[in-house]
Amino acid sequence: METILSSAAKTVAIGPGRPVCIIGERINPTGRRALAAEMASGNLERVGADALAQVAAGASVLDVNAGIPMVDEPALLAEVIEIVQSVTEVPLCIDSSVVEALDRGLEVYQGRALVNSVTGESDRMEAVFPLVARHEAAVIGLVMDEDGIPESAEKRLAVARTILNRAGEHGIPAADVLIDPLVLPVGASPEAGRVALETLRLVTSELGLNTVCGASNVSFGLPGRPALNSAFLSMTAASGITAVITNPLDETSRTGILAGDLLMGHDEHCMNWIATHRAAAAEA
Amino acid sequence: METILSSAAKTVAIGPGRPVCIIGERINPTGRRALAAEMASGNLERVGADALAQVAAGASVLDVNAGIPMVDEPALLAEVIEIVQSVTEVPLCIDSSVVEALDRGLEVYQGRALVNSVTGESDRMEAVFPLVARHEAAVIGLVMDEDGIPESAEKRLAVARTILNRAGEHGIPAADVLIDPLVLPVGASPEAGRVALETLRLVTSELGLNTVCGASNVSFGLPGRPALNSAFLSMTAASGITAVITNPLDETSRTGILAGDLLMGHDEHCMNWIATHRAAAAEA
Repeated sequence: METILSSAAKTVAIGPGRPVCIIGERINPTGRRALAAEMASGNLERVGADALAQVAAGASVLDVNAGIPMVDEPALLAEVIEIVQSVTEVPLCIDSSVVEALDRGLEVYQGRALVNSVTGESDRMEAVFPLVARHEAAVIGLVMDEDGIPESAEKRLAVARTILNRAGEHGIPAADVLIDPLVLPVGASPEAGRVALETLRLVTSELGLNTVCGASNVSFGLPGRPALNSAFLSMTAASGITAVITNPLDETSRTGILAGDLLMGHDEHCMNWIATHRAAAAEA
Repeated sequence: METILSSAAKTVAIGPGRPVCIIGERINPTGRRALAAEMASGNLERVGADALAQVAAGASVLDVNAGIPMVDEPALLAEVIEIVQSVTEVPLCIDSSVVEALDRGLEVYQGRALVNSVTGESDRMEAVFPLVARHEAAVIGLVMDEDGIPESAEKRLAVARTILNRAGEHGIPAADVLIDPLVLPVGASPEAGRVALETLRLVTSELGLNTVCGASNVSFGLPGRPALNSAFLSMTAASGITAVITNPLDETSRTGILAGDLLMGHDEHCMNWIATHRAAAAEA
């Protein structure tokens, strides 16, 4: 099953058997104070530069988030989308917890976007799915509902199934629903990594859906975070992941993704791996 | 299910839910010309030093191999085992393709050894299992038989089942049979990594056996081998591996193993991971 995203000029397919789709996470003011201040004041120069840098580093899709306290998020997100689409051709992942911001973002977006995100909470699904359906977009479903984040992989699978079914009722095909297994920090919860990986495996084998996750959360609070994130990215590949939301400028993480692709047989003739090593050798 | 190995003074348990057991691979003349020349001339000083260095670097078990062309392997292997057992307390993995060498090695070994290895070939099983049973040792079964190495994970599982059943006929309990899924180079065979990982998962879930593999073979012929080996070691953890045969002095590989343990919830209170980073920080 393939998820097809597009911009006006470019199409990207996400699915099993392909290299993992890298969704660049940098255009997000959360935790980036300088960027947040610039964005709040209407200066979007760094947004454009971040877009170009991430695409150069291997991102096939860019996540765009404009969540800044006290700022008109719908208007800012729409502006960010227009800027990013004016400098790059990659499809975008429109990221907000504010339904009106998703709506405005989808209105100005050129192509088939990925919406980040919906949960298994009934009122969220009823608010987000009509937008996704109207714009023929794809959507990321987080495996949590009114009762919070289930502890077991089996219960997370059940939430994924609920999201899939409800999406279907809105006319959204299964190929356009990606599931995020929710990766919590292993430092606080030792089961967190194993449960997320098992959820990936179950969603892939039982529902046949594409999957996506962020990796950096898993190492929160621990030393050696780049090495942990990189190892986790390789492990998600072994569990069937099809897309990751990450910082492509982080070379350690990128190595984990490319190694995972190669070791799963998804890097044809080892071309991406070898090209990356040639480029690194040329720089050295 | 736990595999219990021992020396005269020390017991090691291998099984799910524990950190992956690191079996040090360095005491092996294959590909180490200087070591081979020394061993052939009866100089076993480096063998003792390699044993200590590997244990200091985190090996819980040491593989010992004395396969040198034109050398009396049974006599040399017995001597190597005696030297290694005189300098360290960790249990040993007695490694030879020569049945008489396994026999002599088991005769002199103090404790419960791991025998490396048997295959699913009937004559190998009939030669090796009686030794394993008589010495109450554990044994590594390679998933290949008279027809070679099966291409699919399902067929490798079938060979593992044959090995398990035949071992049972010789009175060897399932806990003492570890399966090696056979990791071939991905550079030559793009499916190699995925098939090995799927075999690990099937052997674990269908037979409940412990598993072991070497990781360095997977990267043969490719650039960036340490990063690939490290990623693959993390991926085997995600697929349920319980022991790896590797060089613990290779820090990149060791990072992949420790990250895998932590991310699977097998590093209690993240102690091994944090201790390794404190030691690295103290050295820097």
